[in-house]
Amino acid sequence: MAKINKNYNNLPQTYLFSEIAKKTKAFQEKNPGVSLMRLGVGNTTEPIPSTIIKGFITGVEKLGNVDTYTGYGDEQGDTRLRVALSAWYQTQGITLDPTEIFISDGAKPDSANIQSIFGTDSIIAVQDPVYPVYQDSAIIAGHKIVYMPCTEENGFIPSPPNEKVDIVYLCSPNNPTGVVMTKKQLKAFVDYAIENKAVIIFDAAYAEYISDPTLPKSIYEIEGAKKCAIEINSFSKWAGFTGVRLGWTVVPMDLVIEGTEGGKINNLWSRRQSTMFNGASNISTEGALSVLSDSGQKESKKLIAYYMNNAKIIKENLSKLGFKVFGGEHAPYIWLKTPNNLGSWEFFDKLLKEAHVVVTPGSGFGAQGEGYVRLSAFGDKKDVKKGMKSIEENLKP
Amino acid sequence: MAKINKNYNNLPQTYLFSEIAKKTKAFQEKNPGVSLMRLGVGNTTEPIPSTIIKGFITGVEKLGNVDTYTGYGDEQGDTRLRVALSAWYQTQGITLDPTEIFISDGAKPDSANIQSIFGTDSIIAVQDPVYPVYQDSAIIAGHKIVYMPCTEENGFIPSPPNEKVDIVYLCSPNNPTGVVMTKKQLKAFVDYAIENKAVIIFDAAYAEYISDPTLPKSIYEIEGAKKCAIEINSFSKWAGFTGVRLGWTVVPMDLVIEGTEGGKINNLWSRRQSTMFNGASNISTEGALSVLSDSGQKESKKLIAYYMNNAKIIKENLSKLGFKVFGGEHAPYIWLKTPNNLGSWEFFDKLLKEAHVVVTPGSGFGAQGEGYVRLSAFGDKKDVKKGMKSIEENLKP
Repeated sequence: MAKINKNYNNLPQTYLFSEIAKKTKAFQEKNPGVSLMRLGVGNTTEPIPSTIIKGFITGVEKLGNVDTYTGYGDEQGDTRLRVALSAWYQTQGITLDPTEIFISDGAKPDSANIQSIFGTDSIIAVQDPVYPVYQDSAIIAGHKIVYMPCTEENGFIPSPPNEKVDIVYLCSPNNPTGVVMTKKQLKAFVDYAIENKAVIIFDAAYAEYISDPTLPKSIYEIEGAKKCAIEINSFSKWAGFTGVRLGWTVVPMDLVIEGTEGGKINNLWSRRQSTMFNGASNISTEGALSVLSDSGQKESKKLIAYYMNNAKIIKENLSKLGFKVFGGEHAPYIWLKTPNNLGSWEFFDKLLKEAHVVVTPGSGFGAQGEGYVRLSAFGDKKDVKKGMKSIEENLKP
Repeated sequence: MAKINKNYNNLPQTYLFSEIAKKTKAFQEKNPGVSLMRLGVGNTTEPIPSTIIKGFITGVEKLGNVDTYTGYGDEQGDTRLRVALSAWYQTQGITLDPTEIFISDGAKPDSANIQSIFGTDSIIAVQDPVYPVYQDSAIIAGHKIVYMPCTEENGFIPSPPNEKVDIVYLCSPNNPTGVVMTKKQLKAFVDYAIENKAVIIFDAAYAEYISDPTLPKSIYEIEGAKKCAIEINSFSKWAGFTGVRLGWTVVPMDLVIEGTEGGKINNLWSRRQSTMFNGASNISTEGALSVLSDSGQKESKKLIAYYMNNAKIIKENLSKLGFKVFGGEHAPYIWLKTPNNLGSWEFFDKLLKEAHVVVTPGSGFGAQGEGYVRLSAFGDKKDVKKGMKSIEENLKP
């Protein structure tokens, strides 16, 4: 007699973005003449630059020719791409062998699936608030979760947990708060992990938005991190690959946990992926190779600069209007404290109804997100400006 | 203190295809002059037809233009594709609503991930031999497994288990045996599932290789199946998408298990996918739409005919040489009984060393696969013929 996995009953009742879509749709149906400004969703909007488009075309053309056609690829992902990523890390002073890199279809599935290789009774620490995948996948797997509060008081950067945990998820630059951990702050977690024999899962999906060279883009800039940390990254926010799907996960050979030798964790992830995954698309892969080319790098930096200009517009305008805003300097997200102690969804509704601006309620990212909303820099500059103007003109006090 | 998931220790020591690659590589390094004929791996080799290539190009071009650029797509996958698949099922007399179809990056991940929505103590039945993903993912999740032997005696089609199980995986046309279940044989499983309140996971990835219209291509051709079966399918073997990555899973609204209402299982899968997956590539999706167009259908049927001609060549030649062979009529796989009771790996080694032909050892698909090897119709016709000639001329008795 088949039964359902009851852990699903413990999930937040609706998935955040579905709920926003529903509310927005309902408003739109009641007000068909109104044009909404969507400043909430973390979905890229600018076209992919020409060098990368050419990469995709190359990938497609290869598939149309018997001499260049490829099916299933190399087990950990296209070797050329793993070599190119290894070289890219080296330009940042980080030495990683291509065998330590696994290509995937994105950071989100990897963030969830990585739990598979660790004990089913692992205690998992997550930031609060944070992008839901770490917590929700842990709930589905039945793990105990420890929350690390990110509050105005600690600058939205938590300290390592007081208790012993097995797995620590860290997302920096953070989604949704837009703040970035310093090397010192990150070092505290590496020290914690080594002392407590825990593993850090470091989500660096927004690393390319960091412009201050003293801030760490990779956890491997921190001494000792290779012994205790897995890093996940993606081309989604870096080069507009949200719909294209291409990410990667680094599992260093030096990463060991109690009772295992070097290479064992790397080997387990290899086994998980070769058993339950069949590789990223070979078309996406060719595009990814182009992202890492000189011109691809230049063009994607421009893309990021475009979004970061939006972030600046949002931050400056909202500050000018007297809102308390955080992040948005090294991340495409602005974290806004709601006025008059409004709840996140209350302020979401207010912005929707009065200013026709759609944001993301902070409470959807965790209990500590209550009283905040997330604004996103992804969007057309004109729409961002229009949204700011509409908030200025239409939002009632 | 992080620990590993000990269930990984219960997996077969090496993943079948990695082991073949290693053995082949070792032989090649010792015999650099020898050119090997690979007749084992289920990887497509023919180029993707022009209509579908044009579909990919459309997908790529859209990403290069701000007006047509898309990021994350619809939650269950591109609505146009779900509507097109629904229409395609309808041409076969099967009515499925687009909300019952979920687009994914392939049949393999879905086959594994679907277990997430069912009880962690589910007992899972799998064919023996069969494609490893069902068993291996069940081992990783710690499920009890019941094997359904597929032997020469039962024509490689098992009967439903004698004991009560919760989940039954069925793969028809079967990989690796190449045999197809009749409607009557499949009906026995549907009846079993309804009687025992079990759920069938039906992997139809090779359905398009069926040419006999009396054989079921979809489990939903069987009365009652919507109440108890999930169907998984893919464009991989149908249109050369092994490297492109595009599949889908059908979870009917009528599918209920004890204690749930209609739509609940569909909803759970929706939750699993929206939480832990981020959609198939939008480029792959455009190609998939082209597969379902009139010309795409015609061209992909030609592709399949090409491979099935290879299957015919293999089957006829091996039969002529006195081998006992099965399958290969409605599937791209030929299941060969090894001569002189040789073990699967023994015969693999013999074929590699004497005939320079690489096949897939049947024992890699399960205990009942011992004493068999799988030959695959994927490959160039010339190579297939060369392989057959080499076996005829070089294989020592």
